[in-house]
Amino acid sequence: MCNVRPSGVITLLTDFGLADFFVGAMKGVILSIHREAVIVDLTHLIPPQDIYAAALTLADCYATFPEGTIHVAVVDPGVGSERRAVLLETARYFFIGPDNGLFTLVLENEPLQRAIQITVERFFHHPVSRTFHGRDVFAPVAAWLARGVSPSEFGPEVSDLTRLPIPRVERLGEKRWRGQVIHVDRFGNLITNVTARDVPLEAVRQGGRLLINGHEVSALRTHYQEAAPGELFALVGSTGRVEIAIREGSAATSLGVGRGATVEILLP
Amino acid sequence: MCNVRPSGVITLLTDFGLADFFVGAMKGVILSIHREAVIVDLTHLIPPQDIYAAALTLADCYATFPEGTIHVAVVDPGVGSERRAVLLETARYFFIGPDNGLFTLVLENEPLQRAIQITVERFFHHPVSRTFHGRDVFAPVAAWLARGVSPSEFGPEVSDLTRLPIPRVERLGEKRWRGQVIHVDRFGNLITNVTARDVPLEAVRQGGRLLINGHEVSALRTHYQEAAPGELFALVGSTGRVEIAIREGSAATSLGVGRGATVEILLP
Amino acid sequence: MCNVRPSGVITLLTDFGLADFFVGAMKGVILSIHREAVIVDLTHLIPPQDIYAAALTLADCYATFPEGTIHVAVVDPGVGSERRAVLLETARYFFIGPDNGLFTLVLENEPLQRAIQITVERFFHHPVSRTFHGRDVFAPVAAWLARGVSPSEFGPEVSDLTRLPIPRVERLGEKRWRGQVIHVDRFGNLITNVTARDVPLEAVRQGGRLLINGHEVSALRTHYQEAAPGELFALVGSTGRVEIAIREGSAATSLGVGRGATVEILLP
Repeated sequence: MCNVRPSGVITLLTDFGLADFFVGAMKGVILSIHREAVIVDLTHLIPPQDIYAAALTLADCYATFPEGTIHVAVVDPGVGSERRAVLLETARYFFIGPDNGLFTLVLENEPLQRAIQITVERFFHHPVSRTFHGRDVFAPVAAWLARGVSPSEFGPEVSDLTRLPIPRVERLGEKRWRGQVIHVDRFGNLITNVTARDVPLEAVRQGGRLLINGHEVSALRTHYQEAAPGELFALVGSTGRVEIAIREGSAATSLGVGRGATVEILLP
Repeated sequence: MCNVRPSGVITLLTDFGLADFFVGAMKGVILSIHREAVIVDLTHLIPPQDIYAAALTLADCYATFPEGTIHVAVVDPGVGSERRAVLLETARYFFIGPDNGLFTLVLENEPLQRAIQITVERFFHHPVSRTFHGRDVFAPVAAWLARGVSPSEFGPEVSDLTRLPIPRVERLGEKRWRGQVIHVDRFGNLITNVTARDVPLEAVRQGGRLLINGHEVSALRTHYQEAAPGELFALVGSTGRVEIAIREGSAATSLGVGRGATVEILLP
Repeated sequence: MCNVRPSGVITLLTDFGLADFFVGAMKGVILSIHREAVIVDLTHLIPPQDIYAAALTLADCYATFPEGTIHVAVVDPGVGSERRAVLLETARYFFIGPDNGLFTLVLENEPLQRAIQITVERFFHHPVSRTFHGRDVFAPVAAWLARGVSPSEFGPEVSDLTRLPIPRVERLGEKRWRGQVIHVDRFGNLITNVTARDVPLEAVRQGGRLLINGHEVSALRTHYQEAAPGELFALVGSTGRVEIAIREGSAATSLGVGRGATVEILLP
């Protein structure tokens, strides 16, 4: 096993919001341990305690970062309970957070090399509260790791990580699949779990149809301006997922659908 | 022509919001190319696809940054279409984004030295999506520029930049002008397009009046606490524009007006 | 007096929001003076002109930062008036902002060594507006301080700082106290001003009760998952304050209470 070295970049992804002291406290702890850290916010607006949304957001951008980046993700309804804190090492990155399934989607693309249960309290911020491990456990461990502490010093290796149930695309027939909306983005685009891995998207482009909430979406466009203003259309988005959009509008609002809505895809 | 050198500071201004993976992905791409970049968020809360709001926000703060700063602005309804990607060079700064008028207001104060159409794909993040040039074109080009690649290496010079129509103050008579509200800020202040360039504000201060949505604003104050609590008043704001405010309240809410509202200014 | 040296870290806490040009302008001014500054946002979502909320948020996280950090706080309804601009020096930190009570809570834990009134205009960003001292006074002074200018160069020492009235816990009887909700956080938790300094929390844990808005909260839990789903409970939060929470829900919404609500605590 050839180990990656920390680059000094630490990303943060939480459900802490931007109005409270939470994010500031995590950054203060990191900089107090490792003044040279480069801290990057992925987002702090994950809906409260929504582990799946966090897993998806992290999976969609972690790989743009330089090798050796430490990704800290804290959506942690079980904080203070017996749920474990973990440090994961892959060929290119480190991931730190609660062992509640947050890293399930990342690990589908990024083979795990080693998982450490974080137990060694001398690396924690003291006194350790029972309600804010973002500040007291995850931030300081990330900072010490960035400073050069070896992963194995934070605790024992473990092998039975918690996995999140992931909604999969179902094949209903030879020319029919069922997926679902897994996210609604800032623009009201409906992001589905359908990718070219599941469905032959080129064939969909040649006369296929999508059905969502009683609406038929016939077109698979390549980009937004290929659609007419106000047109409902589908396209393959920048993370490879099929999205349903309305040009110059919000598909979520217009169709009245959100996360969890079913999408059917039919070939001609 | 004496060229400015990149300072390593890269600012980001987008309509991507703060809840999705978009901004994180741009930062990851930048740091993967240029680990030493200093990335500063101007805002990511431009209303979706509102090019004018982006142009205004950028114009109001770009000049506070150190010489050699690279300002990346991405409000890009035409992403994936034939609209061009551009890199602009002025005496002090670089600007990178879609050629859709985003830089119109900046260029009123900052003479253009050179405009490059960004075409050379070896500087892009691959595969290049048709829907997210923030990540795949603008971020990596900014990072390579910060690392020292010369502007001319990104593509050919162009001269016919797209300009946005800008609402101007009209002179209605010798003592009468008509402007409009161009922005509502966090505090509910109504920011107008009226400046001392258009209207003799000292004369307005000596007994002039403002009319907005049937309300008369008689006072031109110098700062907020000069007004009485609850008083409706006007002042010259920190970017030189006439603002209409209510002390300890929101003028936008109280007057029921927003962007686009007409303001008349009358001298005594 | 042994003086702390600036670490180069500058934090920002304001009520400017994240949609306008305000925060970007402050950062531009700082980087123009001191390119090596490490700028950290605490929050910019303090409710407009809410000095107490700012004081509380700052008090809850300033001490996680490295020694020599410069904390800049700008919630400034009196901007442009005769209210003073101040630079405070404690054994470990610097604080810069308007003298309107913003630092009252910090100074309860962090003994003041020296307070300087900021008056020397050559350190300002010119022209100095009457409405945006965040950009024109506080940001540049923080940057020059971080660059090594001595505090005494910014103006004369002063001793009569403005203090904010702070809501205190009242003792109503031998076994009874009255506190109040001082903040509602992102998760709808009701943060009170009750700490172990005021009330014997171990005794509360052994059979004490809390009353809030007609609801009785009997349990003092140690962490969220100790409560049953949907249970209303109290716990000692990560800053030492008693919080009222609902597991997997918002106590603020469920109880219909917000800041200022009274909490009674009774021992058995």
